[in-house]
Amino acid sequence: MEPQASTSGPVAWTRKHLLGLEDLSAQEITAILDTADSFTEISARSRKKVPALQGRIVFNLFFENSTRTRTSFSLAAKRLSADTQDFTASSSSLSKGETFIDTARNIEAMGADLLVVRHATPGAPHLLSKHVDCSIINAGDGAHEHPTQGLLDLLTIRQAKGSFEGLTVALVGDISHSRVARSNIWGLTKLGARVILCGPPTLVPRSLQELGCEIAYNFDEILPQCDVVNVLRIQFERQAKGLFPSVSEYSQLYGMTQERVLKGKENLLVLAPGPINRGVELTPEVADGPNSAILNQVTNGLAVRMAVLYLLSGKMESKGTGTGGDAPANEKDA
Amino acid sequence: MEPQASTSGPVAWTRKHLLGLEDLSAQEITAILDTADSFTEISARSRKKVPALQGRIVFNLFFENSTRTRTSFSLAAKRLSADTQDFTASSSSLSKGETFIDTARNIEAMGADLLVVRHATPGAPHLLSKHVDCSIINAGDGAHEHPTQGLLDLLTIRQAKGSFEGLTVALVGDISHSRVARSNIWGLTKLGARVILCGPPTLVPRSLQELGCEIAYNFDEILPQCDVVNVLRIQFERQAKGLFPSVSEYSQLYGMTQERVLKGKENLLVLAPGPINRGVELTPEVADGPNSAILNQVTNGLAVRMAVLYLLSGKMESKGTGTGGDAPANEKDA
Amino acid sequence: MEPQASTSGPVAWTRKHLLGLEDLSAQEITAILDTADSFTEISARSRKKVPALQGRIVFNLFFENSTRTRTSFSLAAKRLSADTQDFTASSSSLSKGETFIDTARNIEAMGADLLVVRHATPGAPHLLSKHVDCSIINAGDGAHEHPTQGLLDLLTIRQAKGSFEGLTVALVGDISHSRVARSNIWGLTKLGARVILCGPPTLVPRSLQELGCEIAYNFDEILPQCDVVNVLRIQFERQAKGLFPSVSEYSQLYGMTQERVLKGKENLLVLAPGPINRGVELTPEVADGPNSAILNQVTNGLAVRMAVLYLLSGKMESKGTGTGGDAPANEKDA
Repeated sequence: MEPQASTSGPVAWTRKHLLGLEDLSAQEITAILDTADSFTEISARSRKKVPALQGRIVFNLFFENSTRTRTSFSLAAKRLSADTQDFTASSSSLSKGETFIDTARNIEAMGADLLVVRHATPGAPHLLSKHVDCSIINAGDGAHEHPTQGLLDLLTIRQAKGSFEGLTVALVGDISHSRVARSNIWGLTKLGARVILCGPPTLVPRSLQELGCEIAYNFDEILPQCDVVNVLRIQFERQAKGLFPSVSEYSQLYGMTQERVLKGKENLLVLAPGPINRGVELTPEVADGPNSAILNQVTNGLAVRMAVLYLLSGKMESKGTGTGGDAPANEKDA
Repeated sequence: MEPQASTSGPVAWTRKHLLGLEDLSAQEITAILDTADSFTEISARSRKKVPALQGRIVFNLFFENSTRTRTSFSLAAKRLSADTQDFTASSSSLSKGETFIDTARNIEAMGADLLVVRHATPGAPHLLSKHVDCSIINAGDGAHEHPTQGLLDLLTIRQAKGSFEGLTVALVGDISHSRVARSNIWGLTKLGARVILCGPPTLVPRSLQELGCEIAYNFDEILPQCDVVNVLRIQFERQAKGLFPSVSEYSQLYGMTQERVLKGKENLLVLAPGPINRGVELTPEVADGPNSAILNQVTNGLAVRMAVLYLLSGKMESKGTGTGGDAPANEKDA
Repeated sequence: MEPQASTSGPVAWTRKHLLGLEDLSAQEITAILDTADSFTEISARSRKKVPALQGRIVFNLFFENSTRTRTSFSLAAKRLSADTQDFTASSSSLSKGETFIDTARNIEAMGADLLVVRHATPGAPHLLSKHVDCSIINAGDGAHEHPTQGLLDLLTIRQAKGSFEGLTVALVGDISHSRVARSNIWGLTKLGARVILCGPPTLVPRSLQELGCEIAYNFDEILPQCDVVNVLRIQFERQAKGLFPSVSEYSQLYGMTQERVLKGKENLLVLAPGPINRGVELTPEVADGPNSAILNQVTNGLAVRMAVLYLLSGKMESKGTGTGGDAPANEKDA
């Protein structure tokens, strides 16, 4: 892996919330990736724990089911020695008529330092960030953004390719309904990669060119230009709405096969946000093959979430007493 | 805040269980509030944790849904460094025919030190306390008591008003079905406050006078005498039973508006056990206004629950080896 | 309690997974019981915690409901200072079409060190153990094995009787559908006990003799030979299938009554894997009487699970850096 442009001295992180990659500068995204890199080492230890956030409380406030992302945030928090608490919509007071903002204010009053929010409505985390003092992390808001998924994709690409300059990355599948696609687009274009959106026209409208991407409908034609292919998950419920004719036709046109891997550039990197449908978005041969970085993505998800919790927490600290939790990354397990 | 009558020397707490405020003396209630006060300081730190209950196990055994109270107990336990475990009725062995007492005995055999119980049947925690050796905390038993809610209301009042002598507190709403009301009544009358119960006659029967309270049906008439108003939550299912005619009529007669705030004594304190129905029991203007202590109540809930876990745990300790967990409050984070 | 044959020097544990007692030698089973004995002391302390597995992650991956076993594993992990994470089937990505093995690989990629698996399909944990690098613990696979339940039964018997030589143990009830019975049979016969399977012919087929057991249909006839009786739970859904005529007839023929206790050998030990149906498999008088070790079984469940987590974790450690978690049992809380 090539060294990243190392901004001399420690990272100057100033944000309180992580709402989306659209808001971040290339320098800020790089700061998160650098911090995440320093945390990946911890995941390789048998004692996967540093005391950085001891005594802090990380709340998961999820209004949509998500075992995977919620678990990843919980484990990231635990590796930083924070306490975690889940607050799920179904069992919560929301069913008793409490407003979304009142629920968040109550959670804050219980001492939450960092609030990880998933909600079906785009902008819900942004709204909360205006009404509470704790840090808000967007863990997916409708079809808008899923910034930590974008960041873990970026980290996985950077680990494999060294840098983003000159890279061509194809995002394949249901772009229009995908918050993962949107966070990837913002992140990749800011860091200098060329992004091609590829899928059936019903799922990849021309208007997405406005985001600084190219649009393609023929996957096989663009593959020879690609360094990275990120195959998005097909939501089967879209088919019922007539947005694509059949799963088998979709797989034939856009499914990642070993044959297609060979059409890409050398060492084509294949990413897929789980859970994968084997035989739909990609074949088992590709999923388990040497070009796949699917499980690296999962591992990097933890490192990225540790980095985000760590950086946002340091920001909070600067308002406080200055003790605990704000040691620079290279001293954090001294 | 005025200083409390400081009983010289450390608190002499001797109870093993917290079943209700009816059982406690004024001195015992004050001991809990004093201990809670010493814990509120911890909640203001960035490192919200003391090692007092390290290695202890706090079990939440909830037979009714309650994200809020359960979460508050869990966080209180974690701040004291205890391990926590949830045991919910729906997923438990109770559905397999096991008795309530056998379930509790099993939990105790797994090493539970403190058992937080919520149950729809009044007296259920009292029954358990006769069959297990661990400490039982009542987290709500039917319409009987909810002692930690009563205590957090008392703490919030004491923080705002300094003492209970000469205070007039109105409890407004559905008194007859409310365990919150009952715990408030016991606590407030023991500490010397005058308590007025106010609401529609169907929800405030005359018989409640036996508890040492006054009864009133016209909210506007009693407001000028009130230092504190605690507006209880309306359970909409009561309306279906014909206990009040309509939500809008209820709000008109008993809803806390800014106009009514001005009718109360100076610095009228408005409390409401969440989750609140904005526009029903109180208007948004009042809920978010300077007289409202709703979020303080939530924060005090943690401090009160830390105090209860801490005091009951110290009692247990006296049966044990004498190491750990029994340091006086002022040494607990040394 | 009599001292066990002490193999001189520390235990040489070499297995990575605990899939069943069928695979283990008598020496390996004894090693687990000895380690569990050394952990029972911890459960009697007020500070029930040792740092042995600090920074390790224990995942519960349960595809069948089981509050009790899952809770016992979680508490065992917490007492060893590991972090725990539950991953339940209903809320997980499995409902989104992900394969069982992909789910486990994802959990491993999130850093799981030990994966506790319950699944309705016999052999499911064995399958996983071939596809992931972390340690797999079988927490029940169909009607096949439930090794930690078998081990806790063995530990409870050893504590009461000192050794297994010359002991006669009856397993009573629905043997053919019981993973608990199967793990008991393997463990008991390996350690030298005589095992009698007893129940109605529909639930105790003759073919089970192949496992090295005797078969009996008349409970009262064999009781005078028994040192231990383990009364298995009746699954009421079996009755619907006509496998036994009625609960009352079952109780009359096979229910453990005080009268039957007196027919057994002196100090007859009565075991029952919870949750118990009082009045069905055994009378309340027996369940709460001096011959019953039901609650000891629950307490021993924690010690056995701590031992298993500890031993398997030490095995993993030998692949790693050699720091942490691999201290011998007698130094683990130094």
